[in-house]
Amino acid sequence: MAVDIRTQGLQKPVSVAEYLFARLYEIGIRSVHGVPGDFNLVALDFLPKAKLKWVGSVNELNAAYAADGYARTNGIGALITTFGVGELSAMNGIAGSFSEHVPVVHIVGCPSTVSQRNGMLLHHTLGNGDFSVFANMSSQVTCELAKLNKPAEIADQIDNALRECWIRSRPVYLMLPTDMVEKKIEGARLDQPIDLSEPPNDPEREDYVVDVVLRYLHAAKNPVMLVDACAIRHRVLGEVRDLIEKTKLPVFVTPMGKGAIDESSPTYGGVYAGTGSQPGVAERVESSDLVLSIGALKSDFNTTGFSYRTSQLKTIDFHSTHCVVRYSEYPGVTMRGVLRKVTERVDVGKLAKQHEVTKVVNEVAENRDSSDTITQAFFWPRVGEYLKENDIVVTETGTANFGIWETKYPRGVTGVTQILWGSIGWSLPAAQGAALAAKDMGVDRRTILFVGDGSFQLTCQEVAVMIRHNLKITIFLIYNEGFTIERFIHGMEAEYNDISRWQYTEVPTVFGASDKQVRKFIVKTKHELEKLLTDKEFNEAGGLQFVELWMPKEDAPRALRITTEVAARNNAKAE
Amino acid sequence: MAVDIRTQGLQKPVSVAEYLFARLYEIGIRSVHGVPGDFNLVALDFLPKAKLKWVGSVNELNAAYAADGYARTNGIGALITTFGVGELSAMNGIAGSFSEHVPVVHIVGCPSTVSQRNGMLLHHTLGNGDFSVFANMSSQVTCELAKLNKPAEIADQIDNALRECWIRSRPVYLMLPTDMVEKKIEGARLDQPIDLSEPPNDPEREDYVVDVVLRYLHAAKNPVMLVDACAIRHRVLGEVRDLIEKTKLPVFVTPMGKGAIDESSPTYGGVYAGTGSQPGVAERVESSDLVLSIGALKSDFNTTGFSYRTSQLKTIDFHSTHCVVRYSEYPGVTMRGVLRKVTERVDVGKLAKQHEVTKVVNEVAENRDSSDTITQAFFWPRVGEYLKENDIVVTETGTANFGIWETKYPRGVTGVTQILWGSIGWSLPAAQGAALAAKDMGVDRRTILFVGDGSFQLTCQEVAVMIRHNLKITIFLIYNEGFTIERFIHGMEAEYNDISRWQYTEVPTVFGASDKQVRKFIVKTKHELEKLLTDKEFNEAGGLQFVELWMPKEDAPRALRITTEVAARNNAKAE
Ligand SMILES: Cc1ncc(C[n+]2csc(CCOP(=O)(O)OP(=O)(O)O)c2C)c(N)n1
Ligand SMILES: Cc1ncc(C[n+]2csc(CCOP(=O)(O)OP(=O)(O)O)c2C)c(N)n1
Ligand SMILES: [Mg+2]
Ligand SMILES: [Mg+2]
Repeated sequence: MAVDIRTQGLQKPVSVAEYLFARLYEIGIRSVHGVPGDFNLVALDFLPKAKLKWVGSVNELNAAYAADGYARTNGIGALITTFGVGELSAMNGIAGSFSEHVPVVHIVGCPSTVSQRNGMLLHHTLGNGDFSVFANMSSQVTCELAKLNKPAEIADQIDNALRECWIRSRPVYLMLPTDMVEKKIEGARLDQPIDLSEPPNDPEREDYVVDVVLRYLHAAKNPVMLVDACAIRHRVLGEVRDLIEKTKLPVFVTPMGKGAIDESSPTYGGVYAGTGSQPGVAERVESSDLVLSIGALKSDFNTTGFSYRTSQLKTIDFHSTHCVVRYSEYPGVTMRGVLRKVTERVDVGKLAKQHEVTKVVNEVAENRDSSDTITQAFFWPRVGEYLKENDIVVTETGTANFGIWETKYPRGVTGVTQILWGSIGWSLPAAQGAALAAKDMGVDRRTILFVGDGSFQLTCQEVAVMIRHNLKITIFLIYNEGFTIERFIHGMEAEYNDISRWQYTEVPTVFGASDKQVRKFIVKTKHELEKLLTDKEFNEAGGLQFVELWMPKEDAPRALRITTEVAARNNAKAE
Repeated sequence: MAVDIRTQGLQKPVSVAEYLFARLYEIGIRSVHGVPGDFNLVALDFLPKAKLKWVGSVNELNAAYAADGYARTNGIGALITTFGVGELSAMNGIAGSFSEHVPVVHIVGCPSTVSQRNGMLLHHTLGNGDFSVFANMSSQVTCELAKLNKPAEIADQIDNALRECWIRSRPVYLMLPTDMVEKKIEGARLDQPIDLSEPPNDPEREDYVVDVVLRYLHAAKNPVMLVDACAIRHRVLGEVRDLIEKTKLPVFVTPMGKGAIDESSPTYGGVYAGTGSQPGVAERVESSDLVLSIGALKSDFNTTGFSYRTSQLKTIDFHSTHCVVRYSEYPGVTMRGVLRKVTERVDVGKLAKQHEVTKVVNEVAENRDSSDTITQAFFWPRVGEYLKENDIVVTETGTANFGIWETKYPRGVTGVTQILWGSIGWSLPAAQGAALAAKDMGVDRRTILFVGDGSFQLTCQEVAVMIRHNLKITIFLIYNEGFTIERFIHGMEAEYNDISRWQYTEVPTVFGASDKQVRKFIVKTKHELEKLLTDKEFNEAGGLQFVELWMPKEDAPRALRITTEVAARNNAKAE
């Protein structure tokens, strides 16, 4: 081939794939999820050179879910799919990351720019010569979309997209044509890291907001903090901790904020979610005269059906794009800078002496009854006793997502849930991604998943990926004969809420696990549960562990009962 | 509740759900695929009354694939999903139906019109109050989209959408808010069936085209017919058969047209796909001086990489929206009417005496070698001997889709493939849908699936649905250690083309099959294959049968080798 004239002026020519993957590595990605397809195969050849591991997902939806779980643990995740068939399969997973503010880089291998220009009738197209249609769809659920069609622009496009992904904490989409993969671009740019720093607030505006906040804070009689999803997703937990440490304010979390705060700290007061709050918590939060609300995301399931009884007149909202003090809005003034300065400048002497918060404990004894049935009320507090520091706890939509509100996390636990988007089947791949992220970071953390039997069936083959990568994951499969959460919304006895009975514990074996690679348990009684949770080897979690956990079909956690009632009412509501 | 003033004027008030489901039944649907979700639960209650069976799919992508397979066998299919999470999971399946002209009705249960109007921050949303975003995405891959928001318009919207679905043979999308499900609309309309008839051509224009066609046909020395995908999908096979019977023209099929023509008829000449054609076929078609091309869909994989050597000057194209004679185009003149009149008016006496076509046979002996290895070259002709009349044959993207070109179908076989869209994992649910459709129609047909081990992993849980509904399906799982088709495109030895080793034959058992419900076979040699294919019970196919069929990793059917070479070249092609 003739020398490409455009590479001649390059100081350090590198191929587009090299550049892209080097950047992924630089921003902290070590494993890339996805499924091969002929439009991405050549790109995949470049992964090893960039020290990126190819996961080899079982399908694209699972890949997207897993990249989401990876990102929630590691900070950012990536997946590669193929044009049309692959990317559309991943769509729901990407939408979930968008909805829940999770930064995921979606790279789509697509037909060459030549084929595109000629409108060729290729496989994986709609047959209409339109090569933009899938990108258009993705643009709805990504915060940046780049078609890497012109070598001269590609490095900029990549850097910009990765920056947006990180800063806005949402998915981005990169469309990589087959003929661009090996095109040479300027590698010297790689000597300069991508700037991932957030643009600072305008200092004068920021100071103004800080003053207002401090005025209210100093005047408040019993201020509290409430930490929600976006505090985690927009990475201000350091700032939040500093503020707590300095002020010793009572702090509560929402369901989506669970895991943000050290729940063993003396000022931690429990989970607030309106009527679904832990005992005593709603009273405490709602009687406060100043709620510092950090990263709020007041969705129905995060608020037990919009049941907050807090007043905006007593609230200061800190967000990633703006702040609101009572009804005064400060667009463009973002929470990080404000929180830092509030911590710096708060006069601790001026703060009201805090009422103590009720100590949060796992109410195991309180929820034990005389039967041997493992009830939802009993199980979740008991889990709190089983958990260890730095565990990664993944819960699925269903009884698990609500039950976990009753579980007190030890210090350092990462809570991984999807309460807003709530796509069932997400948790199994997400747990895989989370465990892989921990492994990639070289830290020894247990990954523990609580998933319903119904949800498990949607994405069960992810177990094969766990096995293939030898991940140490403990799976509690809640065996309650179907869609219990749905039963509580509508159709308690309806056939459509039933599922077929699988031999769940045999799933890992069929998907390739040797007897050494997996330990299987069927747990039907409190007694058996106790034995398992106190077993030393089980607690060490040296490999894949699969527990089929029997719980009653018509039993649900307290908060779920309330939430589903509201949901049913909302669905029925007519004008 | 107060009497709704709007129901008072109705002659026969029926609820929206009743109306919709009655219409689905009327147009031939008996089973509805899908997954429950709180936004569709109440609607599901209305299925039994309409004599519709709820399938209870394992996930939404599978549901969409299955509805596609159902539609390919039964004429039309339907699925119900839930807002956001459900519908987006199904997107790739719907896009496949769109691409391949398969009529599927996608009903999406969504939040109430009240919640939508209030922009509530509900679960399954992007958190931005936008309730149109998913519908917007779907509009790209559906031929009609209706938001059923106003009772007075709903019946019209439904009838119109179903009509479009049928006539344009593509998916439609119906967005059904929870508060509309039980709203009363005019049921008297149901006494009048939906008009599914195609608008006839303008007679003068049609006559004109027929004259032109006949002129060329009468003058041709060795005319042939070539039947492709859209002849099946747009339901002109009756017209095509009449034309063949009257004219005795030699007739060929494309890969996507396979199954359209009785392959045991004396004028059937084999599969034409350019350089990938069956032996002798390309010569015969390409030397013809007039190709009547019916429902052509000349995609890369349907033409062995655009390798036709036919001339437009010697071609007449019949399409569902227009016809083309040489270079003269006739927009709006559709093939059905033209074909009918051509058959009526053709003067058989004026037709050139036809050269015989080479008889198509399954070349089993010719492709047998001395080894005991089951080669691709040997297997597919052998399958032709095993097949029976009226079998439904489903093949997956991969070696199967190309191998099947070498299989001669007995009369009445329905070929189910997805050569244009080519989404792997599709075939397993599609086979389930096809078998269910046959069962619903009360006909006793075998459904036989050929699926690669790689593809199987993406949607394996569909086996649970087959078991739950006691479907009689014979699955040949081609065990060749991974993505053989991809290996031939790029990366013969690449790790990304490997997959993990499952205990495939145990999959049905784990997914709930009793030993009575499933028969399992592992077939490693020609000898074992022979024994199986001649076994009486196996041929009777009384239940689910699962065959793990060992084939060499680096072996591919003839046509696939050529196609993948072209694909690789296309992908690499730079300006
Ligand atoms: C992709 C998707 N499809 C459907 C739903 C609707 N849905 C929400 S929860 C649920 C049932 C979950 O059942 P299971 O996992 O068994 O949980 P549990 O029995 O513990 O409530 C369903 C079907 C959804 N949220 N996501
Ligand atoms: C949803 C989707 N993801 C990825 C691809 C790319 N792809 C096409 S064929 C194939 C491999 C199929 O392997 P297998 O089913 O084992 O077939 P074989 O060729 O080995 O018979 C892949 C990954 C695709 N077509 N669809
Ligand atoms: Mg369940
Ligand atoms: Mg294979």
